[in-house]
Amino acid sequence: MTQGTIIGVIGAGSADDKTLKSAEVIGRLLGKRNALLVCGGLGGVMEAAARGAKAEGGTTIGILPQDSTDLANPYIDIPIATGFGEGRNVIIVRTADALIAVGGEYGTLSEIAFALKMGKTVIGLRTWNIKGVIQADSEEDAVSRALHDR
Amino acid sequence: MTQGTIIGVIGAGSADDKTLKSAEVIGRLLGKRNALLVCGGLGGVMEAAARGAKAEGGTTIGILPQDSTDLANPYIDIPIATGFGEGRNVIIVRTADALIAVGGEYGTLSEIAFALKMGKTVIGLRTWNIKGVIQADSEEDAVSRALHDR
Amino acid sequence: MTQGTIIGVIGAGSADDKTLKSAEVIGRLLGKRNALLVCGGLGGVMEAAARGAKAEGGTTIGILPQDSTDLANPYIDIPIATGFGEGRNVIIVRTADALIAVGGEYGTLSEIAFALKMGKTVIGLRTWNIKGVIQADSEEDAVSRALHDR
Amino acid sequence: MTQGTIIGVIGAGSADDKTLKSAEVIGRLLGKRNALLVCGGLGGVMEAAARGAKAEGGTTIGILPQDSTDLANPYIDIPIATGFGEGRNVIIVRTADALIAVGGEYGTLSEIAFALKMGKTVIGLRTWNIKGVIQADSEEDAVSRALHDR
Repeated sequence: MTQGTIIGVIGAGSADDKTLKSAEVIGRLLGKRNALLVCGGLGGVMEAAARGAKAEGGTTIGILPQDSTDLANPYIDIPIATGFGEGRNVIIVRTADALIAVGGEYGTLSEIAFALKMGKTVIGLRTWNIKGVIQADSEEDAVSRALHDR
Repeated sequence: MTQGTIIGVIGAGSADDKTLKSAEVIGRLLGKRNALLVCGGLGGVMEAAARGAKAEGGTTIGILPQDSTDLANPYIDIPIATGFGEGRNVIIVRTADALIAVGGEYGTLSEIAFALKMGKTVIGLRTWNIKGVIQADSEEDAVSRALHDR
Repeated sequence: MTQGTIIGVIGAGSADDKTLKSAEVIGRLLGKRNALLVCGGLGGVMEAAARGAKAEGGTTIGILPQDSTDLANPYIDIPIATGFGEGRNVIIVRTADALIAVGGEYGTLSEIAFALKMGKTVIGLRTWNIKGVIQADSEEDAVSRALHDR
Repeated sequence: MTQGTIIGVIGAGSADDKTLKSAEVIGRLLGKRNALLVCGGLGGVMEAAARGAKAEGGTTIGILPQDSTDLANPYIDIPIATGFGEGRNVIIVRTADALIAVGGEYGTLSEIAFALKMGKTVIGLRTWNIKGVIQADSEEDAVSRALHDR
């Protein structure tokens, strides 16, 4: 594996069961397609997506707000301890080739905004309805669109 | 002057005349009320607001994306060279006690999102319609609400 | 005041009396010369230098590691809340036109290193003996050299 | 592989042949010991160490100063695009469990300083002679000490 496609999965640190299930399915699909998954490394959508990716043998990167790698969820292979708090959101976006937003609150909105400003593809599944976000019908649709032409 | 109220004025680096005029009026009103103005330090809404504040004897802070203070607009008293690109948006939000968004594109949206996540008051004037933003009727209304109880 | 010379004063958060006295004198001399003082905004050398500058009517900027401006020392006019922890050291260095190191421990060493890498003038008073640091004989000598040709 | 030991290898972007050879040997030894290697992702010592690690089947992380993962050297598996310039040095240090400095200039000195401030083990091979750095006799000695008790 060298410098494969990196897909960001963004969403809230706590979420309802339907959203968590979606995140896990998206993680599984990314793992099957051998994409690297990058996320914020904590709980909720981040953990569900990483768990899904690991179940399929994928590789997971967690860009943490804190200054210790110990705080990554247990499904993160590569924990990056930024110590920059929410400022780490911009690193997730810069590192990803395309992003999938699943549900999400204000932190996710900041990531969507950065990604669109940088001209990156953002796929949304039941997330903020912001001009420029491509709304997907399903987890499969989201992953397919994120990986399109890559 | 020691540690006065700091109001962030956020908006795009290029904007139409109406938006620029609003930003300048907001800057004037903040200068008259002796609030410190913090912005991104570049052109468009940032420059118009800083020009307004300086016209009334206010003090202006520019949190720049670049690594050189030379790139601040001419109405910035205190240029901060972060070198963090869009990552500087989070510093603007953390430094401000409350924020006023005037118009704005994706960068402004990222700042609105960060501010709401941090629980800060965000006043909007013809900006993104995001849950949590207090929409103002006029420049006076925006400044009054941003300074309320401070 | 618009975009005057900005001098960084760097040193430890706790220091002996002699070092604190030096920092305060340096702050006074910078205040008299109408230089803007930028520092890390906390205690020890940072507070002593800011107190000196304020005693002479100078303006002081504190680039804080935390995410709240409330944590600045009482002599800081312009508190910048980065939330980046030690990562804020690079912002102090980028913002300063030249730097004066007074005593100092590892945090100060990181700032000296960044400044020399960026090609900035670093004046030292009883600080790390690193190639490239100009060692000063006195507070007056340090300030004079930092402001030379500016 | 889940959250293994992460060793930072730090050094200059251009270096003499002896230093590059040392970096490559250190990378090989880390790869053999199944440590994750984190570095700055660019040329010189960073590239030599990553090349060594890949030759032994190791995994390599590059924390880049730029905002694009395309700029990583070809031996980086996991490129992280920070866009923070030299500010990324603090992320390398926070992410590493221990660090090995090989030669190095001012950027390396900033990393040594951050690491010592954070209380991390820093092993040096022909690098800055700073109090707190453990000077190693050889590449084997450096890697052995960095991995000691981990």
